[in-house]
Amino acid sequence: MDESATPRPPHMTPDEFRALGHRMVDLVADYMRTVERLPVLSKDAPGDVLARLPEHPPERGLDAGAWDEVFRDVQAAIMPGVTHWQHPSFFGYFPCNASGPGILGELLSAGLGVQGMLWQTSPACTELETRMLDWCAELFGLPDCFRSSADNAGQGGGGVIQGTASEAALVALVAARQKWRHLRAQRTPAGTDAEIGLAESAIERPFAVIASEAAHSSIAKAAMIAGVADGPEDDDRLWSVPTDARGAMDLGALRSLLDERLGQPGAPTPLAVVATVGTTGVGAVDPIAGLVRTLDDAWLAALGRPFDAWLHVDAAWAGSALVCPERRAMIDGVERADSIAINPHKWLLTNFDCNLFWTRARRDLTDAMSVTPEYLRNAASESGGVIDYRDWQVPLGRRFRALKLWFVIRHYGAEGLRAHVREHCRLASLFERWVGRDSRFEMPVPRSLSLVCFRLRGEDRATRDLLDRVNATGRAFLTHTTFAAPGSPPRLLARMAIGAAATEERHVREAWRLIQSTADGISLP
Amino acid sequence: MDESATPRPPHMTPDEFRALGHRMVDLVADYMRTVERLPVLSKDAPGDVLARLPEHPPERGLDAGAWDEVFRDVQAAIMPGVTHWQHPSFFGYFPCNASGPGILGELLSAGLGVQGMLWQTSPACTELETRMLDWCAELFGLPDCFRSSADNAGQGGGGVIQGTASEAALVALVAARQKWRHLRAQRTPAGTDAEIGLAESAIERPFAVIASEAAHSSIAKAAMIAGVADGPEDDDRLWSVPTDARGAMDLGALRSLLDERLGQPGAPTPLAVVATVGTTGVGAVDPIAGLVRTLDDAWLAALGRPFDAWLHVDAAWAGSALVCPERRAMIDGVERADSIAINPHKWLLTNFDCNLFWTRARRDLTDAMSVTPEYLRNAASESGGVIDYRDWQVPLGRRFRALKLWFVIRHYGAEGLRAHVREHCRLASLFERWVGRDSRFEMPVPRSLSLVCFRLRGEDRATRDLLDRVNATGRAFLTHTTFAAPGSPPRLLARMAIGAAATEERHVREAWRLIQSTADGISLP
Repeated sequence: MDESATPRPPHMTPDEFRALGHRMVDLVADYMRTVERLPVLSKDAPGDVLARLPEHPPERGLDAGAWDEVFRDVQAAIMPGVTHWQHPSFFGYFPCNASGPGILGELLSAGLGVQGMLWQTSPACTELETRMLDWCAELFGLPDCFRSSADNAGQGGGGVIQGTASEAALVALVAARQKWRHLRAQRTPAGTDAEIGLAESAIERPFAVIASEAAHSSIAKAAMIAGVADGPEDDDRLWSVPTDARGAMDLGALRSLLDERLGQPGAPTPLAVVATVGTTGVGAVDPIAGLVRTLDDAWLAALGRPFDAWLHVDAAWAGSALVCPERRAMIDGVERADSIAINPHKWLLTNFDCNLFWTRARRDLTDAMSVTPEYLRNAASESGGVIDYRDWQVPLGRRFRALKLWFVIRHYGAEGLRAHVREHCRLASLFERWVGRDSRFEMPVPRSLSLVCFRLRGEDRATRDLLDRVNATGRAFLTHTTFAAPGSPPRLLARMAIGAAATEERHVREAWRLIQSTADGISLP
Repeated sequence: MDESATPRPPHMTPDEFRALGHRMVDLVADYMRTVERLPVLSKDAPGDVLARLPEHPPERGLDAGAWDEVFRDVQAAIMPGVTHWQHPSFFGYFPCNASGPGILGELLSAGLGVQGMLWQTSPACTELETRMLDWCAELFGLPDCFRSSADNAGQGGGGVIQGTASEAALVALVAARQKWRHLRAQRTPAGTDAEIGLAESAIERPFAVIASEAAHSSIAKAAMIAGVADGPEDDDRLWSVPTDARGAMDLGALRSLLDERLGQPGAPTPLAVVATVGTTGVGAVDPIAGLVRTLDDAWLAALGRPFDAWLHVDAAWAGSALVCPERRAMIDGVERADSIAINPHKWLLTNFDCNLFWTRARRDLTDAMSVTPEYLRNAASESGGVIDYRDWQVPLGRRFRALKLWFVIRHYGAEGLRAHVREHCRLASLFERWVGRDSRFEMPVPRSLSLVCFRLRGEDRATRDLLDRVNATGRAFLTHTTFAAPGSPPRLLARMAIGAAATEERHVREAWRLIQSTADGISLP
């Protein structure tokens, strides 16, 4: 039956693709030019998009000549339901900025259709990625232990593109677990009795993850997925450290927590400590060098040896600012970290998804995730002389994401990337000054880079009301967080996160005018 | 300091993007037209691509006018290092096929730069995805329990786009663990003593995952990441079921394994069973209906109740063939599955990455992965009336991947997708006939859809040699697997996996001629 002729599938010819591709590029170019006129936040209600789409798939396809219909539906059915992250007045969450070079890279990646799970399945996909991670380590001023050439006493350094900081956190925990297995295997004859006992029993006990209260939700989620924590409220396995007046991890509180729990009989084994460089709420920076000193001291006191769990640095948003040498003090002490994650898809013009993850111990990473059935075996991998990035990540398959990073770095140069970050910091600094001059407002935490948190004095209700009204205009979009200074109740803050590539001073100024005039209409206590 | 003017970042203007975008589309269109003339497998040696790239990032960027340099480097530095997955003579692994409509969708997704973590962050990103998953459930003939509208006794059905089948397997295991937590919470007053005891103790013990020996490596990897298994060789937690003469799970062997282990004191709790529909080695199909009967019988015998662990169906590759009604017998019994995963990025023309994951118990999924800090709270989510897909997956952020699926289905229609799958099956059937006529070759397992496994009679060395020589020509690329019939030693098989969109009968015919003439030069015993 299979051998009889079947109807020819209606593949798009290269020339049809060329014509439609030009048209889609035009759509995107026009979108870049006009997005500013659209409401930032979609005004659709739940179900509106669904109601504009057919309930059933089409039986018949379209000729390439009939794609007018698709372009029409994109405008009519989809666009009203889009919240415009690339809008110059998008100030919500953290940015997820894109750029022309990034889009061109994504287009080429899709066009080549390469799947880079193994070195062999496209050497260029692997090697361009390795080189881009080394370039970025240099651009960000990371220590040499994170370079692909670093030996690190046989553990091997290097970086990889993960999809998101959530995946980076998950693989850090998984590698941290492997580190314990390696320790158990090593610490037999040479160690002290105490060490041997600890290494052996450590793995048998539950693990715990240590992070500040302000760490990103992806840390708890990673612990849940990895089977470390039972849920976000599992305080036995998620040791949550209070924050200080700026929202950074309180090292005194960390020390008390460690003194209380470390080495207690039956207590979980600390698996990993996560330092956040730029919290999602208020952009606070955990002090890595001080953190490491506190960890060493507490470990020595309770366990008789320096800190030896995994230290992961989550610099998802703020890490992009490391392209500016004047910002690098932010990661002082990072040479003691085992891994660090930075998202160029947030603030460095490389479209989502592009998380950069470096480790100083790639052996822990790859041993934790390597499974090699016969059908993936090949001479290059078995030589040990190549990188197979599938073993550095959760998925097996991988897109050619290094292309977009390459294009972005080529187009902007180190100089252009610095100008980009500095310009957003400058705009935020202006905004901070304006807020400071209006006595109706307060800023309970200092500006962090391009993020300004502020509120109307008095009850939270007023700030909530302000945000709702501003966002409903469609002329700007801001989101919120809560923040509690030590000893005070949590208060609602509006977050002005500047970061879209298209944002200019006039957009920030207009947003501030809109905020001020909206505040005029809100009754204050 | 921040307020002083900074140099303007050199963003690409919309018109510069338009011109370069057209040029990149032309590059892709030309690539589609000419890829056939390139060697399928890159001839680069390890380090060759690195040697063609600068060691350090550029300090200065390019003008948009200087992008000639980038286009030149793509051709000179990257292309020789590409293994061409879209080449019509790529027959390795499983396909990862792309199409014009899929590339257009990826381009639009990158151009809009939307991040769809929450319904609110782009309603269209969420609702188009929901509708596409319902469309595909219809196209594939999946039972109603997997539709987004299915209540399933309060558990809720529906689907989501994951990156890969690996991530799908991981979230299935994570949801399965949550199912036990739900059971523990429910089974208090109404259950029998045995049930209560079991539910309570089940979670305290380690878990185990059950799959056939031929299940994909991502199943073991997911168990390792989820903290269920200590490594790929952890036989206590990875119950590996022998396969039958066709490579499918041997249900008799499964029953013996269950009789031996189920309900033994201290034995791990079965967390999930994975049925593979189209194994990666030889394309074998685990018989779901028979599997469920076996599980029910074994559970009743040992535990006094029907099977109640999670049943995940991994139909990553073969699932695409379900667009053809004549192939649906392959998933008879799937209405008892808790989840099913199919990759349109393998064989249904939707560029990587696009895995479709459906579940009948979305509550288990979302409860297992939901962490909601203040900065993600919003009125739409709290209403409970919208889907926030971030809780269905490992990452927080998400691209607008539904666009490419929408474009592919619109362009091809159900009719065109069926023609596409049937044409590849027809070509494989031709190839199978040719192999059958050449007495030097044998086919130890039957063809499965578009996959033909074959070998030169005699020792493995001959087939290994054949593959190396064929692949070295650059005129075709095939990979291998091993297969052991019950009671026999494993033997090396060449895999002819037909699936590139550009593959026509002439390419299959040329590959066969190349294989035959290469075999002429290999000394047979």
